[in-house]
Amino acid sequence: MYGLILAGGSGSRLWPLSRELYPKQLLNIQNTESLLQSTFERLTDIIPQKNIISMTGVKHFSNVKYQLSKITENPVVLSEPISKNTAPAIALAAQYISIKSNNDPVILVVPSDHMIKDIKAFSKTVLEGEKIANQGYIVTFGIKPSYPETGYGYINVTKLKIENGLKVNKFVEKPNEELAKKYIADGDYYWNSGIFMFKASVMLNELKKCCNDIYSLLNNFDFTKSDEIPYIEFDKMPSISIDYAVMEKSDKIALVKLESDWNDLGSWKSIYDVSTKDTDGNVKVGHILDEGSKNSLMYSSSKLVATIGLEDTVIVETEDAILACKSDRTQDVKKIFDTLKKQNDNTHLVHKTVYRPWGYYTVLAEGKGFLTKMIQVNPGQKLSVQSHNHRSEHWVVLEGMAKVLLEGKEHILSPGHSIDIDIKEIHSLQNPYEDVLKIIEVQKGDLLIEEDIVRYEDMYGRV
Amino acid sequence: MYGLILAGGSGSRLWPLSRELYPKQLLNIQNTESLLQSTFERLTDIIPQKNIISMTGVKHFSNVKYQLSKITENPVVLSEPISKNTAPAIALAAQYISIKSNNDPVILVVPSDHMIKDIKAFSKTVLEGEKIANQGYIVTFGIKPSYPETGYGYINVTKLKIENGLKVNKFVEKPNEELAKKYIADGDYYWNSGIFMFKASVMLNELKKCCNDIYSLLNNFDFTKSDEIPYIEFDKMPSISIDYAVMEKSDKIALVKLESDWNDLGSWKSIYDVSTKDTDGNVKVGHILDEGSKNSLMYSSSKLVATIGLEDTVIVETEDAILACKSDRTQDVKKIFDTLKKQNDNTHLVHKTVYRPWGYYTVLAEGKGFLTKMIQVNPGQKLSVQSHNHRSEHWVVLEGMAKVLLEGKEHILSPGHSIDIDIKEIHSLQNPYEDVLKIIEVQKGDLLIEEDIVRYEDMYGRV
Repeated sequence: MYGLILAGGSGSRLWPLSRELYPKQLLNIQNTESLLQSTFERLTDIIPQKNIISMTGVKHFSNVKYQLSKITENPVVLSEPISKNTAPAIALAAQYISIKSNNDPVILVVPSDHMIKDIKAFSKTVLEGEKIANQGYIVTFGIKPSYPETGYGYINVTKLKIENGLKVNKFVEKPNEELAKKYIADGDYYWNSGIFMFKASVMLNELKKCCNDIYSLLNNFDFTKSDEIPYIEFDKMPSISIDYAVMEKSDKIALVKLESDWNDLGSWKSIYDVSTKDTDGNVKVGHILDEGSKNSLMYSSSKLVATIGLEDTVIVETEDAILACKSDRTQDVKKIFDTLKKQNDNTHLVHKTVYRPWGYYTVLAEGKGFLTKMIQVNPGQKLSVQSHNHRSEHWVVLEGMAKVLLEGKEHILSPGHSIDIDIKEIHSLQNPYEDVLKIIEVQKGDLLIEEDIVRYEDMYGRV
Repeated sequence: MYGLILAGGSGSRLWPLSRELYPKQLLNIQNTESLLQSTFERLTDIIPQKNIISMTGVKHFSNVKYQLSKITENPVVLSEPISKNTAPAIALAAQYISIKSNNDPVILVVPSDHMIKDIKAFSKTVLEGEKIANQGYIVTFGIKPSYPETGYGYINVTKLKIENGLKVNKFVEKPNEELAKKYIADGDYYWNSGIFMFKASVMLNELKKCCNDIYSLLNNFDFTKSDEIPYIEFDKMPSISIDYAVMEKSDKIALVKLESDWNDLGSWKSIYDVSTKDTDGNVKVGHILDEGSKNSLMYSSSKLVATIGLEDTVIVETEDAILACKSDRTQDVKKIFDTLKKQNDNTHLVHKTVYRPWGYYTVLAEGKGFLTKMIQVNPGQKLSVQSHNHRSEHWVVLEGMAKVLLEGKEHILSPGHSIDIDIKEIHSLQNPYEDVLKIIEVQKGDLLIEEDIVRYEDMYGRV
């Protein structure tokens, strides 16, 4: 069996903890590993590590690759050059796996940002699904609804059994509350979990029948030579979800009820729901001081958050933005996110701390003609060999040792020591040592933007 | 007439905006000037600038002096070496003014952290009070209660008129709500504003009668030679309020009704009350993005604060602490403050940004063996000539020009340029220019505390 992890995601629902450039699947939520990492680990229960492929957007590629490389050697991560929804991604992955396996394996597709704790029950359900997939069906995994949720799509099943599954009648859109209640009363409706599986050939054949716009382009991608997805070809694909493109049209769909726990963590409310509460019903993460609040979620990522007498409220503190929201309004976080995006306020896009394959940096201070960062370089990592056309840089080592290449000359700097890098000088910051390296960077110039960078060499392939 | 501004204050009520080392009177609240500065300006309507004296704790001395020096040349600020409540401070001020004026003037005592907008009405009331004070009374200014407040002390008056005032019967403690309602129904009760006036000789005489513990020590302070209040003498004073020491015991007390507006800004709720609201009843300060909140106060000092669906809630964001509090619980902010103090959490004490007579500094990052600050030196200011026993420093200029004295040698640094200061090297940072100077300081050493400083020369008298 193969696994396909869909690791796209816009980062809007759990803002300000998630950002467009650091979406939900990359976050550690109540765990030492990210949702993406947990998803990968979960699949390894029944799928060999080398058969698990991740698909993500170019913006998240380095973070996805970096996180997965902590679990497995050389994780396969395919990068979509632009966002085209799920159908083109799944079609290309089916094509890719057919070619690479030189076979027709069953592929399990999972979102990267859901929480499932009971791995045994999950694996058991998947193995049930595999039997049906092997009969030529696309198997979707449904969640028995526990309440009339209006935020999910539903799947209506027939009474026709296929192994331990049921043949699907139709997919239905997110209902209003009245309709959702009817679905629950009816009993033949399930929540659409976004998890499904199929033989590669079955998906390719259904694409040919249901969405030839995508199928007809697949041979333009030659995965025998490279894992790269060329922009010019991918851009010809329609932007469409797999539900619209195939699931709602195909007559080869079966449903297996997911026997494990499941939570899509689609809002701060759902984070609250899955979290352990204290006797007042509060969930407290980080540095919180409370006087008499109830049924609230307090999340501090760095600073002290003091709360007094709150009820049913969510407070989330991050380095550059704070959210305070009534629990029944957490779906509206997306509105704030969209407003910020419209206003070109970067607070929707990145954190003050920006993660890179080599570590991270935090902007400490900005002003007229200067910008100051703290940069952490992880052991064994190095930044690209680069130069800047508009700024000089001054580095001071805080912790660890720095190896600096400047115009071909090597400098080893210990804490307290500094170096000047002039405009256009070719330089590289490296940490070949065993401890973390922290430096202060002071940039000075007329144009202080990330894009002012000429790369000559890069261990992460960013040249 | 003389004025005495009591500029003590613990900074607990408006936490996290106020701190123990940066209390309410030093804050700009809806204004370009601080409450202390507004208080000084208000008094100048009827009192010559040189006759206005401020009394504060040693911890706030440099800030009080600095703020007042922006309004008047060489403001007189007396510094209490330790906190002993109001009676010793007022006794010493009366003594000080008697000696300095070589006369027996009327002294108006005002807190430094109240808001009064109608200066004309205030001055008119004070001039009414002056007539009574000249008849040998201690005149207290009372506020006609508008609702049964339980957070203030009340003053009960007799029917006996003295000029346009009334003779006081008694001072009463903060009542419970039932009692407060009775006081209002009675009509002969006023809120105690903490504003009062008296002839110096009358106060000294009443102190002799009511609180000889204080009076008998007054001649130990010789203000003919110096404005300094010696610790060893001041520490002998009992810690007691002027209300307990004199007002509740003396039979020479009259009350004049304050005809102006008055707000003691004693809680975030009272800040909300005096602020201009939008059509949803919200008060928004700083970078706020709201979706459907009502009757709430949102205060951002630096970061984006997004609020959704809040009602009757106060959110206050500062660089290192966030408060989220139901409006009817803002009195409990003091509990949070006290808890922090008990836990030795510095968040009660200082802001991340610390104001100094020469400008301010902000701690940007701290770690194992290092500390990084951004330092702003205002035009014409200089830091003391100093050295450190446990740390080296590295300075990088960001904005403006720096004049650095290092071991007797002068260095002029422009933006992007840096200098190393080794352990024990004598140095000084100066800004003799017309623009603001901003630098990054990286401290390195085994002990990185403010107290590791040996001062040789200081324009603010801190040697």
